[in-house]
Amino acid sequence: MRELSKEFQASAATVSAALSELSALGIVRPEPGRGTFVAERRQLAEPDFAWQSQALGPARVDADRASRLGGYGTPDHIPLSWGYLAPELLPTEEFHRIGSRAAKNNRAWMMTPPAGSPELRRVLAAEYRADPGDVLIVSGGQQGLVFTMRTLAEPGSTVITESPSYPGAILAAQSAGLTIASVPADNDGVIVERLADELERTRARVIYLQPSYANPTGAVLSPERRTQVLDLAAQHGAFIIEDDWARNLGIDGRTPPPLIAEDPNGHVVTVTTLSKPASPGLRLGAVIARGPAGDRLRASRTADDLCVAPMVQEIALSLLTSNIWPRHLKHLSAELAERRDVLTATIRQTLPSVRIQGVPSGGIHLWARLPHGANTRQISADAYTAGVLVGDGRHFFVNEPPAPFLRFSYGAATPAQITQGIRQLAQILA
Amino acid sequence: MRELSKEFQASAATVSAALSELSALGIVRPEPGRGTFVAERRQLAEPDFAWQSQALGPARVDADRASRLGGYGTPDHIPLSWGYLAPELLPTEEFHRIGSRAAKNNRAWMMTPPAGSPELRRVLAAEYRADPGDVLIVSGGQQGLVFTMRTLAEPGSTVITESPSYPGAILAAQSAGLTIASVPADNDGVIVERLADELERTRARVIYLQPSYANPTGAVLSPERRTQVLDLAAQHGAFIIEDDWARNLGIDGRTPPPLIAEDPNGHVVTVTTLSKPASPGLRLGAVIARGPAGDRLRASRTADDLCVAPMVQEIALSLLTSNIWPRHLKHLSAELAERRDVLTATIRQTLPSVRIQGVPSGGIHLWARLPHGANTRQISADAYTAGVLVGDGRHFFVNEPPAPFLRFSYGAATPAQITQGIRQLAQILA
Repeated sequence: MRELSKEFQASAATVSAALSELSALGIVRPEPGRGTFVAERRQLAEPDFAWQSQALGPARVDADRASRLGGYGTPDHIPLSWGYLAPELLPTEEFHRIGSRAAKNNRAWMMTPPAGSPELRRVLAAEYRADPGDVLIVSGGQQGLVFTMRTLAEPGSTVITESPSYPGAILAAQSAGLTIASVPADNDGVIVERLADELERTRARVIYLQPSYANPTGAVLSPERRTQVLDLAAQHGAFIIEDDWARNLGIDGRTPPPLIAEDPNGHVVTVTTLSKPASPGLRLGAVIARGPAGDRLRASRTADDLCVAPMVQEIALSLLTSNIWPRHLKHLSAELAERRDVLTATIRQTLPSVRIQGVPSGGIHLWARLPHGANTRQISADAYTAGVLVGDGRHFFVNEPPAPFLRFSYGAATPAQITQGIRQLAQILA
Repeated sequence: MRELSKEFQASAATVSAALSELSALGIVRPEPGRGTFVAERRQLAEPDFAWQSQALGPARVDADRASRLGGYGTPDHIPLSWGYLAPELLPTEEFHRIGSRAAKNNRAWMMTPPAGSPELRRVLAAEYRADPGDVLIVSGGQQGLVFTMRTLAEPGSTVITESPSYPGAILAAQSAGLTIASVPADNDGVIVERLADELERTRARVIYLQPSYANPTGAVLSPERRTQVLDLAAQHGAFIIEDDWARNLGIDGRTPPPLIAEDPNGHVVTVTTLSKPASPGLRLGAVIARGPAGDRLRASRTADDLCVAPMVQEIALSLLTSNIWPRHLKHLSAELAERRDVLTATIRQTLPSVRIQGVPSGGIHLWARLPHGANTRQISADAYTAGVLVGDGRHFFVNEPPAPFLRFSYGAATPAQITQGIRQLAQILA
């Protein structure tokens, strides 16, 4: 060490810090009492992985779709399609304060029960008027979806989704080894007659829906259809996985109550998330399920992931019970309204060939149709090159899209970025 | 609010804080401009969940086994069987410091790529002499196991485990919908001839092993068998899931290198964890896989869980690159040696009918055999009532145990607790 100190004219402390970093990287190896040595690197022959393809069998998850989920581009991209909120919309200072306090609490370093911290379950249960015992903490909505699909449906059985639908749900169903049957939806949500046909045809026992502010369309399931969908589930002995991701992202008026609130007999299993309204880094969600399905999910939870990081649970609890939280949600609603209006107005002014498929009253996404024959794969790739992220509509369909669509998001970009992004897209479409 | 303030003789600030807490719990509902009202509770008829059993079909996960995994009893219990370290063995002050710093870093609040933070992958790769691109961050060893089994094996296919084996691995295989074939192991690890037979008979493509300090036996796979097991995997085109949970829990001499270091062609997929050596609350692990299997795992990762909470990843990175880490591991090894020796000596002195099945040279568990006919279910239940947690050996076998065994752990209790716990057990066994 003295030699290194001399050779590089660095203090002993600096050399020691550098050595411990190199040691952590495995580049050097300390030998107590002897000194520090360069670690030998094993020389390997060219590996042969050919046998793996046979062992693995057919892939379940569509790797191309997976590679796009949550994709953000570079920091220089204008995110006109992203499923989370922009940093300036997050209660960042509050998180620094809450997080740093949580880290100093010993509770953050011991495990919680697999179902989650009792206090956090109680708070989330209250929001859904549920029994705290029916609430299961998971590490975000995506884990909630795949976990629920996997546990409620047998591999090889069918899950019915709306079409278009959230790509993460399509991936979750693939990962769970399920066959996906998709049923068209319009501005009032899933088309009930088609859902009835598909339940009859496939004998599916699991339906996946986003009743409030669906991603990508922003559609809200109409009051009439809510009742009809619940009746169909009862009639067919089916579960409805209610993906309630946008409950706290309402803009105009109140978010409709969750479907689970109108379901006496445990057909609805609700998945909710804090990653959307609070922070993409707060990987925390919950599954609410009653009856034997709840028991089944609780047992599987232990097998799948022991518990969500207790520190993340502590932070979520502090946030939800702080008076910052209702203020944040109110502020967020006003901000989302402004950004949605800017996006809508700019598209209407600047992109005459693009037709908005209903102005969303909540959520963070807007769905738009392009003229027949438009190549959304090419358009989104060109936009990416020009520094703008837009969502290729193809990824929201299980199979071929019935028309060319783009998804726009107004939660991740500032009003100025939205205007600029749409103008750049106009040049690409022209 | 003025009325409440008067009625309860509390300041306006106190009343306001109480109301916002009640509002978070859904017990009251603020109506802007009108005041705060008691929220109505919906009256529900008695629910009918009978239809669910038909919809759910047969359970995959053994709920009884699941209810025991990670179970800790009450804070008053002496944990003579628990899979984590006692609080006094953890670098708690360091965690408070690192955690509170991490929470103030904006990186902790944005997502990382699904495979994990590039810096953390690099550090973990160095430890295994692996390519950082082959490392996938997961939220703990249990998630790593079930995720790997699910992705590498088709539902309905067979996974081969050692017997006895870690109950969490048995649950993971159940959750993944796999059939479990178990092969006996002795003090040198899995018995290779039996493994060969079982590969032949079941055509399994996945083998699950704990080559270093197996849970519950403490066995280390002998150098000769390491080569034979790798040869068998090559010959049968099979994957070996190497559960390397105890790499940093060595006591006597060096922990053998991971099996993956001797495998040129991607047969070994290694699962490692920080929750064991660092803190049960640090839910962080990694999967290391090469070739198409790595690609498959990376795609599934996105479908399953987007990313591990970035704050947890930041904390892990700080810990692994701090000079506290090697000091902690050194201290831990000495502490574990002492506790193991106290456990071993006390069992030998106090429990003459109990035969230790090999003194472990690492890990935190000791496996012991009871006289023929002993009822370990009753013994562990009686011990629980008397305030001592011991592991019922039945849970470590897929089917019937071949003899009555107990698992003891020396990582979770102090030397004094170990002595006291074993004495209490002696009274129960007498």
